[in-house]
Amino acid sequence: MSASTSLKVRLPAFVLVMEVVMIILYAMFVTYDDNANAKMQNNETNPMDNSMYRDYPYFADVQVMIFIGFGCLLAFFRFYGFSGMVFNFLTAAFTIQWAILIQGFFQFYYNGKIHIGVINLVNAEFACAVVLISFGAVLGKTSPVQLLVMSLLEIPIFSVTEWAVLKYIRINDAGGSILIHLFACYFGLGVTFMLYRPSLNAGHAKETTSYHSDILSVMGTLFLWVFWPSFNSALTIKGDDQHRAVLHTFIGLSSSTITAFALSAVFNKRGKFTMADIQNVTLAGGVTVGASVDMMISPVAAYALGVMGCTACFLGYRYLTPFLAQRMRIQDQCGIHNLHGLTGLISSIAGIVAILLATEETYGPSMFQIFSHRAPPEGDPKLLELQQLIPGLKPGLGRSAQEQALYQVAAIFTTIAAAAIGGVLTGMVMDLSFMASPSDEDCFDDEVFFDMPSDFDSVEVLKTPVSSDEKGQTDPSDTKV
Amino acid sequence: MSASTSLKVRLPAFVLVMEVVMIILYAMFVTYDDNANAKMQNNETNPMDNSMYRDYPYFADVQVMIFIGFGCLLAFFRFYGFSGMVFNFLTAAFTIQWAILIQGFFQFYYNGKIHIGVINLVNAEFACAVVLISFGAVLGKTSPVQLLVMSLLEIPIFSVTEWAVLKYIRINDAGGSILIHLFACYFGLGVTFMLYRPSLNAGHAKETTSYHSDILSVMGTLFLWVFWPSFNSALTIKGDDQHRAVLHTFIGLSSSTITAFALSAVFNKRGKFTMADIQNVTLAGGVTVGASVDMMISPVAAYALGVMGCTACFLGYRYLTPFLAQRMRIQDQCGIHNLHGLTGLISSIAGIVAILLATEETYGPSMFQIFSHRAPPEGDPKLLELQQLIPGLKPGLGRSAQEQALYQVAAIFTTIAAAAIGGVLTGMVMDLSFMASPSDEDCFDDEVFFDMPSDFDSVEVLKTPVSSDEKGQTDPSDTKV
Amino acid sequence: MSASTSLKVRLPAFVLVMEVVMIILYAMFVTYDDNANAKMQNNETNPMDNSMYRDYPYFADVQVMIFIGFGCLLAFFRFYGFSGMVFNFLTAAFTIQWAILIQGFFQFYYNGKIHIGVINLVNAEFACAVVLISFGAVLGKTSPVQLLVMSLLEIPIFSVTEWAVLKYIRINDAGGSILIHLFACYFGLGVTFMLYRPSLNAGHAKETTSYHSDILSVMGTLFLWVFWPSFNSALTIKGDDQHRAVLHTFIGLSSSTITAFALSAVFNKRGKFTMADIQNVTLAGGVTVGASVDMMISPVAAYALGVMGCTACFLGYRYLTPFLAQRMRIQDQCGIHNLHGLTGLISSIAGIVAILLATEETYGPSMFQIFSHRAPPEGDPKLLELQQLIPGLKPGLGRSAQEQALYQVAAIFTTIAAAAIGGVLTGMVMDLSFMASPSDEDCFDDEVFFDMPSDFDSVEVLKTPVSSDEKGQTDPSDTKV
Repeated sequence: MSASTSLKVRLPAFVLVMEVVMIILYAMFVTYDDNANAKMQNNETNPMDNSMYRDYPYFADVQVMIFIGFGCLLAFFRFYGFSGMVFNFLTAAFTIQWAILIQGFFQFYYNGKIHIGVINLVNAEFACAVVLISFGAVLGKTSPVQLLVMSLLEIPIFSVTEWAVLKYIRINDAGGSILIHLFACYFGLGVTFMLYRPSLNAGHAKETTSYHSDILSVMGTLFLWVFWPSFNSALTIKGDDQHRAVLHTFIGLSSSTITAFALSAVFNKRGKFTMADIQNVTLAGGVTVGASVDMMISPVAAYALGVMGCTACFLGYRYLTPFLAQRMRIQDQCGIHNLHGLTGLISSIAGIVAILLATEETYGPSMFQIFSHRAPPEGDPKLLELQQLIPGLKPGLGRSAQEQALYQVAAIFTTIAAAAIGGVLTGMVMDLSFMASPSDEDCFDDEVFFDMPSDFDSVEVLKTPVSSDEKGQTDPSDTKV
Repeated sequence: MSASTSLKVRLPAFVLVMEVVMIILYAMFVTYDDNANAKMQNNETNPMDNSMYRDYPYFADVQVMIFIGFGCLLAFFRFYGFSGMVFNFLTAAFTIQWAILIQGFFQFYYNGKIHIGVINLVNAEFACAVVLISFGAVLGKTSPVQLLVMSLLEIPIFSVTEWAVLKYIRINDAGGSILIHLFACYFGLGVTFMLYRPSLNAGHAKETTSYHSDILSVMGTLFLWVFWPSFNSALTIKGDDQHRAVLHTFIGLSSSTITAFALSAVFNKRGKFTMADIQNVTLAGGVTVGASVDMMISPVAAYALGVMGCTACFLGYRYLTPFLAQRMRIQDQCGIHNLHGLTGLISSIAGIVAILLATEETYGPSMFQIFSHRAPPEGDPKLLELQQLIPGLKPGLGRSAQEQALYQVAAIFTTIAAAAIGGVLTGMVMDLSFMASPSDEDCFDDEVFFDMPSDFDSVEVLKTPVSSDEKGQTDPSDTKV
Repeated sequence: MSASTSLKVRLPAFVLVMEVVMIILYAMFVTYDDNANAKMQNNETNPMDNSMYRDYPYFADVQVMIFIGFGCLLAFFRFYGFSGMVFNFLTAAFTIQWAILIQGFFQFYYNGKIHIGVINLVNAEFACAVVLISFGAVLGKTSPVQLLVMSLLEIPIFSVTEWAVLKYIRINDAGGSILIHLFACYFGLGVTFMLYRPSLNAGHAKETTSYHSDILSVMGTLFLWVFWPSFNSALTIKGDDQHRAVLHTFIGLSSSTITAFALSAVFNKRGKFTMADIQNVTLAGGVTVGASVDMMISPVAAYALGVMGCTACFLGYRYLTPFLAQRMRIQDQCGIHNLHGLTGLISSIAGIVAILLATEETYGPSMFQIFSHRAPPEGDPKLLELQQLIPGLKPGLGRSAQEQALYQVAAIFTTIAAAAIGGVLTGMVMDLSFMASPSDEDCFDDEVFFDMPSDFDSVEVLKTPVSSDEKGQTDPSDTKV
């Protein structure tokens, strides 16, 4: 609680500057898209065909995931519940408004304006998920100023990467395994590498959970679990593609969940469940089905992906996270490398396999809609033929399955490289001395940044006599997200 | 905490076997239905007409009820919050994937395959609700292995019963009062009858709530309350039928809620509210309107059903649950017989009355759509006439109202009998010695199956000096679901 | 805990009388609207065009806000969590069924019947929000009987005001800034003025939060935050209007949120965050965009409104609430005057400015749809012309922008006056001696109205040694909603 963590000047100054910047940029550049613009409606407009009715339900579901699901999940530390939940709230609210602008410049900018509708908000939410996942790597060790700075820098780096991959490499990644999960993971690892705190490798007295914080965190898991099908299907093509995305996500999560319980019991000394596994590893299936979530992979493949992703994630928490912390200077607080990195890689490979195995026999002509870059290019007579079967099919690049697979590989490496470099650079900025970073001792403690209610001290007092070492609960692998 | 409750081998072995079985069966039998199959889309397909857009919103709402609503509600015990919430999660995730298969064989199997879409997931969620309701009867006294075995056996017994009743008896039961609530209730009572623990009739020191567990449980109630209209309307005919289902469920819940508060205050010695009543009895109206939820019963009938069901449910908790436990060897931990049995019976009777009172004057020709078995059979000239008025009306069985009422009665008895026998048999299997069942003393204790956070012991310590007997809170009627 | 707070007779008697009244009135007057009536469907009905599919998603979202969002938010007191959450549940369930009737008589009554569909439920939910906001002014100091009486009287007064303003003054107020927020606020202030308790101005030992109650309350905030776009857009015109309402609400909330964090840190002595600010002030933007939420105000205006509303709200909590309590006998427990009154006024003024600035150049012809009272009256040739451009445009009153602005001003004053007078009269009734009102000492204490779990006393015991004065947490400005 040294003066250096006071937010009195730093945080308001940051917010004030950003608000002025945003008001100027919103005023100059942000306008409504056609679906939100009264002037674009005419006597042939059917109000119920407005794009909002296609996008808003998914937007609302993802909002619940971002603000309530992540918020509760990150509140799992016993003395850091306020911070977990509230910094998530602050960071998310800031990130989405910032992403509307930055992503807007790259993806929704024409006629000199960024045109917004609910669909931009959905895209901005995905950018927000990226920042919140990265946040998981440094949970407990960062001030809200650092988190806002991270968001400030991560969003442009993410938006450039996303734009370059979508525009130049052109990939299939409906559930965002590559662009969301891999990017977020390696960016977060880059940041935490720069914020390395050697003394925390031995564990920290406050790095523990409580009965209530564990329950709260499971509630977060459940909100993420329940709405994950909406996340994975929010940006697919409408119709059967979105339908499959929901099915695969649900099936992958289900098989992942029972696998997580089984592994948790096997690896526990006394054959009991460990809450951290239930809070995190159960969700692995949702990431693992991501890259192929809209393809005709068959339900059993989604089931198997759930089992595989969950196993990799579990073993990662067990063996890789301690290794990274002790040997690589990468302290991955919530284990995002397990839940988003390893699963993202498996998902990406599965996506490539699905691309290589796709045939017109399985997909019918709509193969060229799902794998849109494989559609014949403008002028090809095959395109006209296909457009008879699928009205509105857009010309593609005429790629073969093998070519598309190589582009996917290129996207994976590009994304990881951009994320890791961006993360390291961002971490350097976050490490500057005026960022209100808490001392090692003050980590994982709400009191640094919050006025605490009167019962908080008594919780502290309770803790001391019952030495947490006796129970062996405070090992550094008790991590999540 | 004897070795016999270790999950180290048993639970993973069960999960592993089931995953192998499911991967084989999913691979052999499960494919996409037409709405989720890319190949079935053609140049006349409008993506926005995909069945997913009709079913997914209800699926998502029921998911919230199953995973969050039930999960929080079942976490009401002070030392059993992890178990209540987490066993619910495990059981639900396993049950839905299992029900997709088993229910699929009975209801969605053609051309050698089970065809799945979101509609199957909705049906599987209903099967899952059945298992979770039955779970309520044995909450606190069962290991997760026992719960998975219960699900393993209950789903086939339920699916056969459901299939037989729908295919051969043919009933009206939109909200599932007969097939969901009565089946789940009597199956659960059969199971708990076989798992009878005489020593628990005297109460158990840990059979108590805490300030926070009570609040968590009320949150579960509120999630169930809010989304119950989606539950009761998920499987009705679209249009005005579904509209009425929402209205009736909401009205029934509202009148039920204020009745529950009134009864709680009347019967309390000091004129205060009892949280268990608020957590459970308020929901009675949702079940009670179920069997007639899509019919033209008039809003006031929904209101009256809410009041009646709530009163029966309340009196059941007060007088019937203790009687069943002490005289009938039926320890109904959460009082499912009150919230699902008594209300289900009232609902079934109300459904019969509504069938007997239905006239074409009230319903117009769509009477033959709602009461589809009363539609004229194939070949009847009246059918052609009706099909002019209601395009797509399917031929029925030409039943009279009285005939339909008798079939409803037959379905009630069939369902109760199948459930009770199935429950007793399942209970016998669950009682086998290798099921990791906790000892009487270890009931209602998270520590048996979970690694506990360091503050859990201190909660225990707190409890001892303040004898709970002094406050009279630990009587066995303090039960729920 | 004197006998005078026993609910044993009073509450059940109230409920019984009201149930009899409602059963009689529902039976005599309430029937289905055309979309819920089987008889009104014919061979041209497309079930998927049923109004339920347009209204139900917003209904469900607002249900979450009312029952879970408000419920958690109001549970912020350490010893009053049961009461906050459960009285909200009881009051809301009663209010909606009552509002269906009373609002129905004023707005949905024709052919001798109130015709109900989901749209009535949405309207009744808004009436319910009014009562719950007013409840915020007297939280902790009222018995459930008093709250039910408040609802009993507030609903008719609100319904008359709403009807008179909509029918005779005719205003634009899509988000309900005038009719919902201003009415609710000044009614609540009127009530609390009559229930003035001088001794509480010095603070109350139990007027404090706990670590868990603060987290619970933030969860309530997050549920309100996430679904507020549905609230503000539930009753707009469908299509681009509703689309803009979602965008503006989201943007306004986002800028409001980061502003609230900044102000919280600036004004805190040690540069920390205060949870009460995060729980309440973050939401100010949702109210502030309300009156102009469907207009073409441009995204940057929504952003600026969020910042302005949030600032006014924050300063209100800081300076105005203590002033009102000490000088004006108005003890506004949750600070509704800040979150609903000041923001409602700013919103109303912004609405007037937006009306004055609206041009056909910006809106196109649909200006006459959004500002429906500006449409030409029946018979005006301009109306026929416009109906070519917007099929189904209804004749208006031919008002100019200036005229409409004046009517908005008239509506603001009318609403505030009706609310304040109605609140004072209602407060007089609530102050009658048989209303089970708790003594000053018993305020903010669950034990008065609930059977408490055995750990509640130990919480009390914990509190005494750690004098809350030492921490300075129990100042009367620690208020919310």
